[in-house]
Amino acid sequence: MSIRIGILGYGNLGRGVESAIRQNPDMELKAVFTRRAPESVKLHTEHIPVVHLEDIRAWRDEIDVMVLCGGSATDLPEQMPEYAREFNVINSFDTHAKIPEHFAAVDAAAREGGKAALISVGWDPGMFSLNRLISTAILPEGKNYTFWGRGVSQGHSDACRRIPGVLDARQYTIPVAESAARVRRGEQPEFQTGDMHTREVFVVAEEGADRAAIEAEICSMPNYFADYHTSVHFISAEEMQKNHQGLPHGGFVIRSGVTGFLKEHKEIVEYSVKLDSNPEFTGSILVAYARALYRLASEGRKGCLTVFDIAPAYLSPLSAEELRVHLL
Amino acid sequence: MSIRIGILGYGNLGRGVESAIRQNPDMELKAVFTRRAPESVKLHTEHIPVVHLEDIRAWRDEIDVMVLCGGSATDLPEQMPEYAREFNVINSFDTHAKIPEHFAAVDAAAREGGKAALISVGWDPGMFSLNRLISTAILPEGKNYTFWGRGVSQGHSDACRRIPGVLDARQYTIPVAESAARVRRGEQPEFQTGDMHTREVFVVAEEGADRAAIEAEICSMPNYFADYHTSVHFISAEEMQKNHQGLPHGGFVIRSGVTGFLKEHKEIVEYSVKLDSNPEFTGSILVAYARALYRLASEGRKGCLTVFDIAPAYLSPLSAEELRVHLL
Repeated sequence: MSIRIGILGYGNLGRGVESAIRQNPDMELKAVFTRRAPESVKLHTEHIPVVHLEDIRAWRDEIDVMVLCGGSATDLPEQMPEYAREFNVINSFDTHAKIPEHFAAVDAAAREGGKAALISVGWDPGMFSLNRLISTAILPEGKNYTFWGRGVSQGHSDACRRIPGVLDARQYTIPVAESAARVRRGEQPEFQTGDMHTREVFVVAEEGADRAAIEAEICSMPNYFADYHTSVHFISAEEMQKNHQGLPHGGFVIRSGVTGFLKEHKEIVEYSVKLDSNPEFTGSILVAYARALYRLASEGRKGCLTVFDIAPAYLSPLSAEELRVHLL
Repeated sequence: MSIRIGILGYGNLGRGVESAIRQNPDMELKAVFTRRAPESVKLHTEHIPVVHLEDIRAWRDEIDVMVLCGGSATDLPEQMPEYAREFNVINSFDTHAKIPEHFAAVDAAAREGGKAALISVGWDPGMFSLNRLISTAILPEGKNYTFWGRGVSQGHSDACRRIPGVLDARQYTIPVAESAARVRRGEQPEFQTGDMHTREVFVVAEEGADRAAIEAEICSMPNYFADYHTSVHFISAEEMQKNHQGLPHGGFVIRSGVTGFLKEHKEIVEYSVKLDSNPEFTGSILVAYARALYRLASEGRKGCLTVFDIAPAYLSPLSAEELRVHLL
């Protein structure tokens, strides 16, 4: 019997989850839930019902794990505590600073409903967090460095689109190669905000817009751009359409530590991802962890968990014996 | 109260474990056990007893986790089942092909004694295995590639030392840069044995030895060298002493996968280590997993486990709340 997955929210991430389910024969997409008019939503998978969010409770016994694919700003903080009472829920909540608060709300709701929940499952937070934890435990004396990119940041792109005269914008976050090289050499530098990343923005401007003013407004935007070296390129709508429609991303986490009686040896551990599709990779992580959540819930686990609480064997469809033979 | 660690076997790895314990304030080295005459063994840490292996059973209630630091060829297959009845034991058993057999023997012994055990904890097997499992679960359609080096292989060095006329030898395993680059580009090539690594050997020969014959014997050695491009350099004893005393190593595991409805997107996940000291890094991993083993044993877990069975939170001295705030 396959694990029955529900998707709540059908944007880029929802489609990423849908496509990942197809690569896992032990899992099955049962239904997609949406706030939109269901008949307006066209899935990639045939014969799967699209259900209005109002009717979600009728599916309580049909769904083993509900994957919430809304945004971290407003959707997930509302939806997770609400649905954690009724379903085993999982998300990729990524507002690092608000994780403790989110965890507490989801944990209380899941315990009330006797369900299991899993938050912040993606690559950062998620895989990067796992690597930070494990390498910090292994090398207690050292420093962690997280670099992101080259990849599209939706938040920064959106911020540029709100500027008057901007029709469309795409922002790439780019790690500073020389800073990464210093870390990989074991130097353990102290970086300022702008030392680790630069930002590159492609803008489609209205005809006759003041390009110099747009560029100045982008580069001086506090938090988003002011602390970084930022380059702005004005391009045509055609070029935007042709060269900037993908959602590539990537990044790397490095632990630079020392060992030895005199702390004379450097040990460098690095985890990196290079992604053609950020939402499909995140969706793939969510699906593997949905399998783990289903298994843990079946064993009677209740309340909220994170990737830190999941023994890796739970992620794989293979048996413990197969894992030891083929992957250990 | 700190976690009380015993070290069984005091070679390079035993010293690596000893030095790692010093970097973990919640852990304490309680005693070192040896087959040698205890008075002949000089530890780096003062006031710690060195105990003959014959007397190990008297320490049953004094040791929370016993770290076995012997070799995988003969020491560990004998010692692990023997001591798994009396202690919570952990090792870095690394003969991949014999892991299932070793697991079964240790599991039976540990269950008999009501103890918990953990095998094959190091970087490969160990961290590399963990990354193979997790990225294979996330990206079910793809290929795994494991490269080792640049680093010293003890087994290959020993094989060269057994050749008549060879006084000393050091063998470095070197990943083929162009092969790694092809994998990182997402090509998913099928490699033959010699495509992924080359071997470099530094030899100190007896005066008057037939160097051409030694080189020919090394390069034609089945399994060890015959399938690889191997270069042999004859050096002086002084140069060996000066430039080849360290035990650096490294390597990387790459998962090259595809996602998307048309499998049109490449996703590359890589985990790499660059180590000044192989035994100290392995010792550091053993110590973090000894903490996990102690906690699991305290919760009542019995029998043999692997890194696949350990939820990452168990590795860290931080609380679940601290982990969520600082590392998620």
